[in-house]
Amino acid sequence: MKKLFQRRQRISNQRKTKKERRMNQDYIKPDNWSIIEEGFDESRVKSSESLFSIGNGAMGQRANFEEAYSGASFQGSYIAGVYYPDKTRVGWWKNGYPEYFAKVLNAPNWIGINVRVNDLDFDLHTCTDIQDYRRELNMKEGWLSRSFKTTLPNSITIKVESKRFLSLAHDELGAISYQVTPLNSAAKISFQPYLDSGITNEDSNWDDAFWHTLQVSSSGNQAFIEAHTMKTNFHTCTFMQSECFVNGEKKSTYTETNESETNVSFTYSADVKQDETYTIHKFGGYVVDRNHDKKELVTVAKEALAIATKKGFNTLLEEQKEAWATIWDMADITIEGDVKAQQGIRFNIFQLNQTYLGKDSALNIGPKGFTGEKYGGSTYWDTEAYCIPFYMATKNQEVARNLLSYRYNQLDRAIENAEKLGFTNGAALYPMVTMNGEECHNEWEITFEEIHRNGAIAFAIYNYDRFTGDYSYIPEKGLEVLIAIARFWQQRATYSEAKKEYVILGVTGPNEYENNVNNNWYTNYVAQWCIKYAIENIEKVKTAFNADYVRITKKTNITIEEIGKWKAVADGMHFPYSEEQQVFLQQEGFLDKELVPVENLAKEHRPINQKWSWDRILRSPYIKQADVLQGFYFFEDDFTTKELKKHFDFYEPYTVHESSLSPCVHSIQAAKLDRMEQAYTFYLRTSRLDLDDYNHEVEEGLHITSMAGTWMSIVEGFGGMRVKNDVISFEPRIPSQWKSYSFKVNFRNQVIKVNVSQNDASFELLQGSELSIVVNDKVVHINSKNLVTV
Amino acid sequence: MKKLFQRRQRISNQRKTKKERRMNQDYIKPDNWSIIEEGFDESRVKSSESLFSIGNGAMGQRANFEEAYSGASFQGSYIAGVYYPDKTRVGWWKNGYPEYFAKVLNAPNWIGINVRVNDLDFDLHTCTDIQDYRRELNMKEGWLSRSFKTTLPNSITIKVESKRFLSLAHDELGAISYQVTPLNSAAKISFQPYLDSGITNEDSNWDDAFWHTLQVSSSGNQAFIEAHTMKTNFHTCTFMQSECFVNGEKKSTYTETNESETNVSFTYSADVKQDETYTIHKFGGYVVDRNHDKKELVTVAKEALAIATKKGFNTLLEEQKEAWATIWDMADITIEGDVKAQQGIRFNIFQLNQTYLGKDSALNIGPKGFTGEKYGGSTYWDTEAYCIPFYMATKNQEVARNLLSYRYNQLDRAIENAEKLGFTNGAALYPMVTMNGEECHNEWEITFEEIHRNGAIAFAIYNYDRFTGDYSYIPEKGLEVLIAIARFWQQRATYSEAKKEYVILGVTGPNEYENNVNNNWYTNYVAQWCIKYAIENIEKVKTAFNADYVRITKKTNITIEEIGKWKAVADGMHFPYSEEQQVFLQQEGFLDKELVPVENLAKEHRPINQKWSWDRILRSPYIKQADVLQGFYFFEDDFTTKELKKHFDFYEPYTVHESSLSPCVHSIQAAKLDRMEQAYTFYLRTSRLDLDDYNHEVEEGLHITSMAGTWMSIVEGFGGMRVKNDVISFEPRIPSQWKSYSFKVNFRNQVIKVNVSQNDASFELLQGSELSIVVNDKVVHINSKNLVTV
Repeated sequence: MKKLFQRRQRISNQRKTKKERRMNQDYIKPDNWSIIEEGFDESRVKSSESLFSIGNGAMGQRANFEEAYSGASFQGSYIAGVYYPDKTRVGWWKNGYPEYFAKVLNAPNWIGINVRVNDLDFDLHTCTDIQDYRRELNMKEGWLSRSFKTTLPNSITIKVESKRFLSLAHDELGAISYQVTPLNSAAKISFQPYLDSGITNEDSNWDDAFWHTLQVSSSGNQAFIEAHTMKTNFHTCTFMQSECFVNGEKKSTYTETNESETNVSFTYSADVKQDETYTIHKFGGYVVDRNHDKKELVTVAKEALAIATKKGFNTLLEEQKEAWATIWDMADITIEGDVKAQQGIRFNIFQLNQTYLGKDSALNIGPKGFTGEKYGGSTYWDTEAYCIPFYMATKNQEVARNLLSYRYNQLDRAIENAEKLGFTNGAALYPMVTMNGEECHNEWEITFEEIHRNGAIAFAIYNYDRFTGDYSYIPEKGLEVLIAIARFWQQRATYSEAKKEYVILGVTGPNEYENNVNNNWYTNYVAQWCIKYAIENIEKVKTAFNADYVRITKKTNITIEEIGKWKAVADGMHFPYSEEQQVFLQQEGFLDKELVPVENLAKEHRPINQKWSWDRILRSPYIKQADVLQGFYFFEDDFTTKELKKHFDFYEPYTVHESSLSPCVHSIQAAKLDRMEQAYTFYLRTSRLDLDDYNHEVEEGLHITSMAGTWMSIVEGFGGMRVKNDVISFEPRIPSQWKSYSFKVNFRNQVIKVNVSQNDASFELLQGSELSIVVNDKVVHINSKNLVTV
Repeated sequence: MKKLFQRRQRISNQRKTKKERRMNQDYIKPDNWSIIEEGFDESRVKSSESLFSIGNGAMGQRANFEEAYSGASFQGSYIAGVYYPDKTRVGWWKNGYPEYFAKVLNAPNWIGINVRVNDLDFDLHTCTDIQDYRRELNMKEGWLSRSFKTTLPNSITIKVESKRFLSLAHDELGAISYQVTPLNSAAKISFQPYLDSGITNEDSNWDDAFWHTLQVSSSGNQAFIEAHTMKTNFHTCTFMQSECFVNGEKKSTYTETNESETNVSFTYSADVKQDETYTIHKFGGYVVDRNHDKKELVTVAKEALAIATKKGFNTLLEEQKEAWATIWDMADITIEGDVKAQQGIRFNIFQLNQTYLGKDSALNIGPKGFTGEKYGGSTYWDTEAYCIPFYMATKNQEVARNLLSYRYNQLDRAIENAEKLGFTNGAALYPMVTMNGEECHNEWEITFEEIHRNGAIAFAIYNYDRFTGDYSYIPEKGLEVLIAIARFWQQRATYSEAKKEYVILGVTGPNEYENNVNNNWYTNYVAQWCIKYAIENIEKVKTAFNADYVRITKKTNITIEEIGKWKAVADGMHFPYSEEQQVFLQQEGFLDKELVPVENLAKEHRPINQKWSWDRILRSPYIKQADVLQGFYFFEDDFTTKELKKHFDFYEPYTVHESSLSPCVHSIQAAKLDRMEQAYTFYLRTSRLDLDDYNHEVEEGLHITSMAGTWMSIVEGFGGMRVKNDVISFEPRIPSQWKSYSFKVNFRNQVIKVNVSQNDASFELLQGSELSIVVNDKVVHINSKNLVTV
């Protein structure tokens, strides 16, 4: 039967059992600034396509080869905000399910360059003797390169060198330099740069076509494909223009143009002497009607090409280096004495910046960024729970504000979503997964029950205000969101006559290895907090922003009576607790489980999500990611360190960390508990999750959102950074494996540089004139002149 | 977005929201022995195709028209035991899921007869003025007829009369008499009987082809299509032969043969005078390699046709009447004074006998029988929980024994199924849905968690022994099943340190409106009972059938130590109980729900499975079908009537009866509690569920398995029949709406006829010489000579 399901297995976004593969611990060369692969291994091609992905916030692509490759490959080029609502595939339909699953959409290919050597197609899969193969993703400067020598079946040995990047300065534009040098004889070399909209999605439920090509055209050296997505009707123009050089000298080698329904190519040929180099510079990219009038797309594309050809490859590359230097200047974390840790954290920071730059409040941070299609959608609670702190501290506050506004702009759809589930009166349930505010995930235990996501969205508003001090967001937009969320929780809680308290039945907490449980402590806690925080802000806005208060109360029809109901729920909320264990229970009945710690679980059972059936996982005590401890992370100040220790010691031993989002929270808490060895272990796991391919799945794409957790592990975990009552504080610790580390934080337009060594920690104010900070509970004054060492 | 998903909606077996339609309460004419439809209504065609379905245990078909019909129709002809393993459609794959969903398979069409009148195709959808349209399913004699007058677009008015049946005497054979009489002029009439294997399935997940046609052939008046199912490779030969009559006189009117890749037809034409009748007798059917050598299928088909043509339509019809008379003689229930109730119960008994006759232990009772494709598979726990009592009492015991053997024969696969979920040492989990013993259902909350089904399978063994007294089944086969099931329960229960008792976590009980609950009382009770019953029978077999004991202990490697573990679980089982309410709780935490009785639920919320999202259903107290009360039904003797009353009064008010299996159990219990009005209401709901189309879904097929529950409602409910300690007893009650009712029971080869009127009840022994029975707790002796009235 197996064979018959391969197609389904291939196309599906499933949590499927992975074949055991070796972990590629030593595959990526340790390097401070680059991701480097040496040697060509066909079985690594798909993994490397993920790891070497490039992006510029507006578009991104897997590191597919420019030239044809007939070996196993996963083609992917993605345009931010352009998605496809694929028909869902479910077993039994449930009322309230959304009708589509938004797919990250493979867009027309503009990087392709077919290469012919003496009229033979060049394809690494058919070549022998591949030597000096080297791929580099230079994170410092933001480009990807590849070089190697190989011999074609026609015995011509060539050297190939390519370099490409997606421009930060001109984010609709990318550039490729591709050069071929025949090494053992003269050869006729042809480059055939092309555009191709006849592409498919790796992840498609029903093999439907996702793109409709409207027009293929060319004029001179320029070519265009106008295509729009089916159903969503995003209109795009994919474009290219190339120029060729023989031994560095620009030459017109054009021979022909070919156009088909979904493809256009130019052919450039030259008779190249032995050891001479034939080079093509190809410029290409996308323009989209998200940003332009759809009738003007070809015109806009021509403008982009005019810039590209005027500046040329090298000038664009210089601009790229500068743009990345600016990003790194603020976002870099240095680690001395541990190259792998250094490489890991930079890889995380680099990928986050490739994915989202905060310019567009209609965009968000997809779990795989521009590196794969798995999970679909672009927005999970990951953004609010994990990503916002990174963007708040390494960019100006407008970026985080845009992320908050994204949810504000989608409030109406969150209200509609709640209505589908029977809620009324403006209660909102934000979607589990979304592109445009509509829910697009279909598993009842997640879609309908993993409702704690609403809590993270409210918490992010609190977190933003706490960190930036920009309260204005709340009267302007945030309060409406808080009210709609409070309404949801009040309606979702029910009164238990047996307990004489409010209960929240049938939920899935952050630990998705429990479904449909009653009184998940985290959910109940965050629900209570949301209500209280909403009430608090209604009062604040009433006092300080009365015009907004009047506008909002009118718009939402909120009454004192309704707020009374909220209060009753918040004040009467039930929290499962064990007197004997002195811990809050993850959910009702947790102690009825067979409480065997993870360390006593035989290795052949791990990871349980690949080895066990779902019922076995559910009745086990094993925790996928922080659940009660997620509450202790968000609401740290509500609990003593002793309580944290108690709960950490109770729950961590049952935690299998099978979510990429798990190790970071535990790393931060272990650091706080002064368990630096454990904190460091968690840190390594989060920072090199993809580079070392812990979960044997990097070929599907990178874990973008958890990368922000890695940043938190250092800044909040090791650095101990917190903000409370408008004061920023640090409690620096350092793993014994490191000599020192440093990071910068933009705190309310004041940039603090923190450097921690084994002996001391120093604080420097790089922007701003004077600031009082707290270090290890003591107030320290820093200014722009002095570096203060503690 | 709606339109895009119509295809998926159409092809899927989903619990989807139904459009509101009127309930067809008055659509079927009340009649004691027939289902009658008068008047042609295109919107009823699909419903009637279900209601007028015919079958003979070996094959069955929806009541599709013989002639072409271009209106909405659902074509279905099914061969018992011939299925297709369709690729499953799920959202997120879970470890342990089976890779296919067995589909009830629409087989090649042999009933088709294209009719032409003066060279115009006759199609009711294009006709005007359809008069005297009448369809009858004669349950007494086992045939389906249709008659009407209509005018074709060419203005020829014809009268059509058809009759067809699937022979009980020759179960590979069906016969059709189809006649056309031109009423307003002479006309050239052509009959084109055909076979067609180019058929599709209404219910297919991926639009794959299910059949592969090997050969289409004809010789003389006979035609054959050899085809096999894809993947499962069931080889079949579909065959036909026809003869024609003008005004009753046999005439050779053959004109031509047409063959295509998947179709073969003969054309018979005659110039028919006004008011003369042109008749075709078509014989056809299937032979299958389940019963014959696949190389001999055409030969065997020819033998079947030889029988058919030798006997002719009328003789076959006479045999059919006799065969049905024999069935009715034993199985009939008469009701005087309530035609609708009479029609309802006979419809139920008739359909059960059309579906399963107990000859073949590889067959079972599909939830839709041969009337539709929904639910797939053929075997659910319905068989053991609902159907076995009917077959035990109305057939000889071999039939029930075959149903038990079906599970014994599939024990190895049940063990494999349990292994997929991590169980070891020969523990068995019987599938939720199956064709051949393999699980073929994919919803984790059902497939992995609705494990109480194992209990019903053990209970059926007990029930069989209790009713038939044939203990031999247990040493021979049953004990191995009981051991494997006990092993499952022992491994599935876990020890709660908190409770100091064994718990069963993460299950779905019979009430499927709760998922992944802990300590479902019914499941825990049935688990405990299974273990105790297995131990009891190990002891019995050891003593009384020692050779079997030795064989079984050797085969199963059972040890005293292992049985000790079972005992510990059974003795230490936890049962959730409310001291305050004095009831066992359906599951842990049931009293935390908002306990609003169903009667206080506004009508617009009903049925909740069409109106509410799944999370809302789950957190509500509403019960789909008997759950705690199912335990009180199975294990009635373990509880007092007072306890039954307490639990019935507690749970029934929260029960929405949205499963066809719900009303019967409640009817039996209401009768026992002397609440005859309520019992009667439940009875009507179960007995006319399909005839009155309570759930607006009869067009998808009939609810076959619940029909056995209807029988139980009368015999066990009103008649109060029980068997205890080898004695059969009755406690007769009668609804006030009825004058009298009667039924027969085959109790250990003694046939008792029970007749209950408003005044008294009489008991007659129709087979056997003498028997002591208990009536209303008093011993009554009956014999073959006298009718005893109590």
